[in-house]
Amino acid sequence: MTERDSFRQNRVCDLFGIQFPLIQAGMVWCSGYKLAAAVSNAGGLGLIGAGSMYPDMLREQILKCQQATEKPFGVNLPLLYPDIQAHVKVILEAGVKIVFTSAGNPALLTPVLKQNGVTVVHVVPDVRFALKAEASGVDAIVAEGFEAGGHNGRDEITSLVLIPQVRKATQLPLIAAGGIGTGAGMLASMVLGAEGVQIGSRFVCSDESSAHPAYKKLIVNAGPGDTRLTLKELAPVRLLKNKFYQEVEEAYAKGASREELIALLGRGRAKKGMLEGDLEEGELEIGQISGAIENILPAAEIVKEIIHDYQALRLEINHPQSRF
Amino acid sequence: MTERDSFRQNRVCDLFGIQFPLIQAGMVWCSGYKLAAAVSNAGGLGLIGAGSMYPDMLREQILKCQQATEKPFGVNLPLLYPDIQAHVKVILEAGVKIVFTSAGNPALLTPVLKQNGVTVVHVVPDVRFALKAEASGVDAIVAEGFEAGGHNGRDEITSLVLIPQVRKATQLPLIAAGGIGTGAGMLASMVLGAEGVQIGSRFVCSDESSAHPAYKKLIVNAGPGDTRLTLKELAPVRLLKNKFYQEVEEAYAKGASREELIALLGRGRAKKGMLEGDLEEGELEIGQISGAIENILPAAEIVKEIIHDYQALRLEINHPQSRF
Repeated sequence: MTERDSFRQNRVCDLFGIQFPLIQAGMVWCSGYKLAAAVSNAGGLGLIGAGSMYPDMLREQILKCQQATEKPFGVNLPLLYPDIQAHVKVILEAGVKIVFTSAGNPALLTPVLKQNGVTVVHVVPDVRFALKAEASGVDAIVAEGFEAGGHNGRDEITSLVLIPQVRKATQLPLIAAGGIGTGAGMLASMVLGAEGVQIGSRFVCSDESSAHPAYKKLIVNAGPGDTRLTLKELAPVRLLKNKFYQEVEEAYAKGASREELIALLGRGRAKKGMLEGDLEEGELEIGQISGAIENILPAAEIVKEIIHDYQALRLEINHPQSRF
Repeated sequence: MTERDSFRQNRVCDLFGIQFPLIQAGMVWCSGYKLAAAVSNAGGLGLIGAGSMYPDMLREQILKCQQATEKPFGVNLPLLYPDIQAHVKVILEAGVKIVFTSAGNPALLTPVLKQNGVTVVHVVPDVRFALKAEASGVDAIVAEGFEAGGHNGRDEITSLVLIPQVRKATQLPLIAAGGIGTGAGMLASMVLGAEGVQIGSRFVCSDESSAHPAYKKLIVNAGPGDTRLTLKELAPVRLLKNKFYQEVEEAYAKGASREELIALLGRGRAKKGMLEGDLEEGELEIGQISGAIENILPAAEIVKEIIHDYQALRLEINHPQSRF
């Protein structure tokens, strides 16, 4: 068995026209065209994170990505922004062929995107949203578990439990997300029923990520248990436990109201932390897998390492003299 | 490749002298000798759950288990009970050879158990406790993730993330727990670095479990997202969201103090719910995987099904025409 035997009947590879079913998550403040193009050029699927871009910036990033790669790439579009139609206009005008939607109702944009020939994928935290996404006509689903960084579901279902649940509920191509950053995590997710993986945190610590260098370094130094899901009254979000997080905890201890939490969060905290490198006052969105990230590498090296380790484990499983 | 090729170099099988590296968790109110013996007779390792037994009851259960199986079995001993030395005396006098300790400091009992020739395994929720367990001289470690039922760690690390962390931190034989109830879950855990699995919730819904029939039925009917980790100020515990859980939530909403939560919890709620079948007032400890449990089977059938599905997936992974 060789690497060439892998992914021969893989619907995620077929759907996007890619070599490896490995998708780089389109994250706020980290995922510009440089990262997306690097991942796509390495055989995965890169996504531009539109969640932190005004429409003009998104247009510029898409055009630059088209120049930087001839491979397929996509855009991640969180559905909670007020000027979402302006983003859609940019995406369609620029000829983007793949859109991942998240954080909202998949019925909102799926029809218009599909009518314009776009392949649409929706990110869900539970079976209920997976069925809503399927009903809205998406082409594939990302099932994202509790361990994922950034915004998260309310039922706190972990990837190990969630992937088989969603696999059972729908026949659509299924991509796993949350807690995955290695070849072992990728293979484990696929054993559970996924046909591909979406990886975020690991790519924050790539050379091409636009995250602030100080933030990347903080992640490399983070240990097990250094993230927490918080702000559940607003929208649950997984953060590194920095000074801002401690302030949130103190507010909880004093019985803060929803309004007080909103005031504490304020505006622009994610940008302040992740892009500008204010590690104390910023909101540092990252997944539990950050505890396992130990270096900053070119994105192509990350893809190569994950696929290499995936293949090595696949061989090991098959070996009669093994723990398996 | 056949079933006989499996687990040839598996340290968990070697350590306990068992056929499959599949351990049935020793759970309060569910795991008497009938369940433990049934799992051991089926080729796994059954554990008697001492956490809900007075010493006399534990002695009786051990003696009955010795009559019901010639295979190895063990006892799970939570370390938080005041009369723990009486339990140890019973265990040593009855000649139990395998003890899993949990919920406490592994340095407490590991030396005395080891001196008496007992194989000792400790259950941990994070790397820090794994290193403490190793330092105390245990023979193996169970790494239990956030998705597990009952008592849980404070860092909320999921199995997908925790297993590789603990694998990297220690060279000891490693057993994964939390969120596992199927062959796919077992194989995924082993891909992540475990050498065996401990399964609890699935065996609650076995014929031989001493859980109340109404409780078993409730689990079969439970859906995704029907459990929650709560009572974090006391000791974090994962429960089915029943009337008692709602009362806890209401207490939180009113800003209840630690003392008020202790008073609300009261005494004997787990027994009331899990053994006596009071589904409204009882504390119903169960893992997230409960959403995937759809029937009540003989324990031997559960073992057989998990191992069968594990083997089928192992074959599928290596098929050149597959999603892998």
